[in-house]
Amino acid sequence: MKAKQFFVFIFGLVLWFSPVPDGLTLQAWHLFSIFISIILAVIIQAFPIFTASIIGLSFSILTHTLEPKEAYGGFSQSFILLIIVAFLIARGVIKSGLGKRIAFLIIKRFGKSSLGLGYSIIAADMFIAPAFPSNTARSGVLFPIVNALAADSGSKVADGTRKKLGAYLMMTSMAGITISSAMWLTAMAANPAGVKMAAEFGINITFGSWTLAAFLPTLLAFVAIPWVLFKIFPPQIKQTPDAPEIAKKELEHMGGVHKNEYIMGFTFIAMLTLWVLSPIFGFDKTAVAFLGLGAIMISKIFTLDDLAHEGRALGTLIWFGILYSMSSELNHLGFMSWLGSHISDFVVGYSWINVYLMLVIAYVFIHYFFVSQTAQMLALFSVFLGVGIDAGVPAQLLAFMLLFATNFNAMITPQGSSANVIYLGSGYIKSNEVYKFGGIITLLNTLIYLVFGSFWIVAVV
Amino acid sequence: MKAKQFFVFIFGLVLWFSPVPDGLTLQAWHLFSIFISIILAVIIQAFPIFTASIIGLSFSILTHTLEPKEAYGGFSQSFILLIIVAFLIARGVIKSGLGKRIAFLIIKRFGKSSLGLGYSIIAADMFIAPAFPSNTARSGVLFPIVNALAADSGSKVADGTRKKLGAYLMMTSMAGITISSAMWLTAMAANPAGVKMAAEFGINITFGSWTLAAFLPTLLAFVAIPWVLFKIFPPQIKQTPDAPEIAKKELEHMGGVHKNEYIMGFTFIAMLTLWVLSPIFGFDKTAVAFLGLGAIMISKIFTLDDLAHEGRALGTLIWFGILYSMSSELNHLGFMSWLGSHISDFVVGYSWINVYLMLVIAYVFIHYFFVSQTAQMLALFSVFLGVGIDAGVPAQLLAFMLLFATNFNAMITPQGSSANVIYLGSGYIKSNEVYKFGGIITLLNTLIYLVFGSFWIVAVV
Repeated sequence: MKAKQFFVFIFGLVLWFSPVPDGLTLQAWHLFSIFISIILAVIIQAFPIFTASIIGLSFSILTHTLEPKEAYGGFSQSFILLIIVAFLIARGVIKSGLGKRIAFLIIKRFGKSSLGLGYSIIAADMFIAPAFPSNTARSGVLFPIVNALAADSGSKVADGTRKKLGAYLMMTSMAGITISSAMWLTAMAANPAGVKMAAEFGINITFGSWTLAAFLPTLLAFVAIPWVLFKIFPPQIKQTPDAPEIAKKELEHMGGVHKNEYIMGFTFIAMLTLWVLSPIFGFDKTAVAFLGLGAIMISKIFTLDDLAHEGRALGTLIWFGILYSMSSELNHLGFMSWLGSHISDFVVGYSWINVYLMLVIAYVFIHYFFVSQTAQMLALFSVFLGVGIDAGVPAQLLAFMLLFATNFNAMITPQGSSANVIYLGSGYIKSNEVYKFGGIITLLNTLIYLVFGSFWIVAVV
Repeated sequence: MKAKQFFVFIFGLVLWFSPVPDGLTLQAWHLFSIFISIILAVIIQAFPIFTASIIGLSFSILTHTLEPKEAYGGFSQSFILLIIVAFLIARGVIKSGLGKRIAFLIIKRFGKSSLGLGYSIIAADMFIAPAFPSNTARSGVLFPIVNALAADSGSKVADGTRKKLGAYLMMTSMAGITISSAMWLTAMAANPAGVKMAAEFGINITFGSWTLAAFLPTLLAFVAIPWVLFKIFPPQIKQTPDAPEIAKKELEHMGGVHKNEYIMGFTFIAMLTLWVLSPIFGFDKTAVAFLGLGAIMISKIFTLDDLAHEGRALGTLIWFGILYSMSSELNHLGFMSWLGSHISDFVVGYSWINVYLMLVIAYVFIHYFFVSQTAQMLALFSVFLGVGIDAGVPAQLLAFMLLFATNFNAMITPQGSSANVIYLGSGYIKSNEVYKFGGIITLLNTLIYLVFGSFWIVAVV
């Protein structure tokens, strides 16, 4: 066992046997010790996220900190299964040739530089976001295209060339989702829930006022993100002056749209239609995805042999399911509200501007412990909003900022959003890279929204 | 779409819109229509079991026949996850070299013929069964050895040589588990539950009386099964006179036990110990398996790259989880008890011997609809036992026979036992082969236990 691995075990043991802080149960503390040890293990690269998660899971069950039923509950969560199915469908998009075609069309238009590709991906995301109330589903649409873009530019995981282009594009698209979700009231599942919770404080937010409030900071973040990642997490291929011409030739070479591309395209459009209609007919999004997977299996675009090579998706299901279960149990056991109340106590007596800054920053960083954006909103949004209003922070300003923060902090950990999980599952990005560069993007987002966004909101809304 | 596939859809639609039988809800009838269509699709090979299951799943959710929460519930069942983890650990047993070594030791001793190997596998199973109260866990022990036996004899799935030897050995071991579970009170999780339910009818069954009652029919089945499968599902390699000598040389070539074999062996023994102790300390068996998996990942016997090639395990989790959820919802919706009560009505007025035969045979074949042996026992054992006693069937005879049937009917479908699922996941056996040859073995078992077993039980117990 390596020194780092040994260190994580010692760290976990010391926490486990440390005195339990006032206001927490022993069980909550024990679960926290395990959870934070897993996260530490991933950050310092003692273990991969899968290994750390299964070891943490077995400890939590064998010590009776978690009941098996609670611990395994994540595996049957609809939104987690959606990630897994989206994964398999993405393989179909690539295999059918449709992914290649769309990728070449994008390269033909924007492909002169890696940076140009980065911007074009986020622009596409922004454009489709208002019609996608699930950022998981949206990442399921974007991911296969980004994946094809990378693979067709000669950057693949299997041959060790992930850093040529793919890693950068994946990281950029993942970062893009944090801001495309903040841009529109309907771009993330929890946004309307937050609006409803704000209404209970007398704060009225509409689709229009949300869009207006989000406009400037989101635009700035849009301009900044691809460029910043290009500097700190650069692709090895930077300029690709010949790429548009090559793409054009490849498209000519591909000829007319093939039968499998039509089937894949039709399946995809049918899925999108059902997803958009899902709130009206009460369709479960994951069941729609399973139906789409069934369709491409009937037409042999995706086969059982293909499935046999998708073990990575199983790994994703397992580690994400485990972390989700642990995080929601931490919430049930009162750990999250305990943390929230400590923050409330802490801000008493400061000026409203300081309280505002502290609350938003704390809200952003607490996401370290949450595996679901929706869960964080449900657990903490009202608490934080109430504390702030009591301390004199303008209600609407704080409400908007916390709503945006629920989205723009999503990249702080690999498990911070189910969209991240899809990108990570590709193998192009390592989890410790998310902790690092996702952390930097979260800082960048926080700075942009907090500084420019605050003045903008006060001025225009 | 092929004719067979079209036929399944028409079959499902006709059932769906048929008048609902008295005593059933519309929902139960709709779920039954979907469930039986999936099974039909697999039997006639219209779809593979994975494809049929995901299409059935999406229909059942999109038509609101099942709620997503119910439909996905199977994915977080501890015993289903145990199958998946056992699968990954089996890969570790092979990779470490330990599987090879054990396989060569068996070949050296019994390897002169494929039939000899078949007998030696079931004998080993019988021998360890009383200490394994979970047949899933037991199949997790046997499977990697059978897998190594097959692979090291040059019979592999990947190169199309599964029928040389592997398919026969897998089918034989799967059949062996149906009778090793019937042999001992402690060889299957539901056996003690059944004994307890029998006690409520005043029937006293002990470990000793169970063993005595099971002895003769199990012995006969043990003699018959490898030979019958050898005739109806023959391996292409029949005589292997040189195999023991080759195995001996290979063992010499392997030299001393390697470090990874020690680690794997130690991990395995530790897992077995924790499994055996699990009832005392309340350890969840699956958590123990996750810990074992963690251990072989820390020691790099099983790596994330290995995991990436285990997509088949994901497929298994999905189809088995779906069928399990559907089957247990059919039970909750009263379908199973409705079926049971129709059988009760049917047997009124017959002589006790006829009632006995009808009840046992019905109990065996109803397993077609059950995905869990335990679920069938909980749903139907008491009903059937009560009906029989009322009709004058000797209570102890019927109780024993239903308890044995709970085990010996397990091979009637691919999903009839979680042990089957592990073997199927290997790819050596196709699901439609289980319907055929597993069906024949179930008939054979029924004949042996019902004819010889009945006289034996009446004579000795």
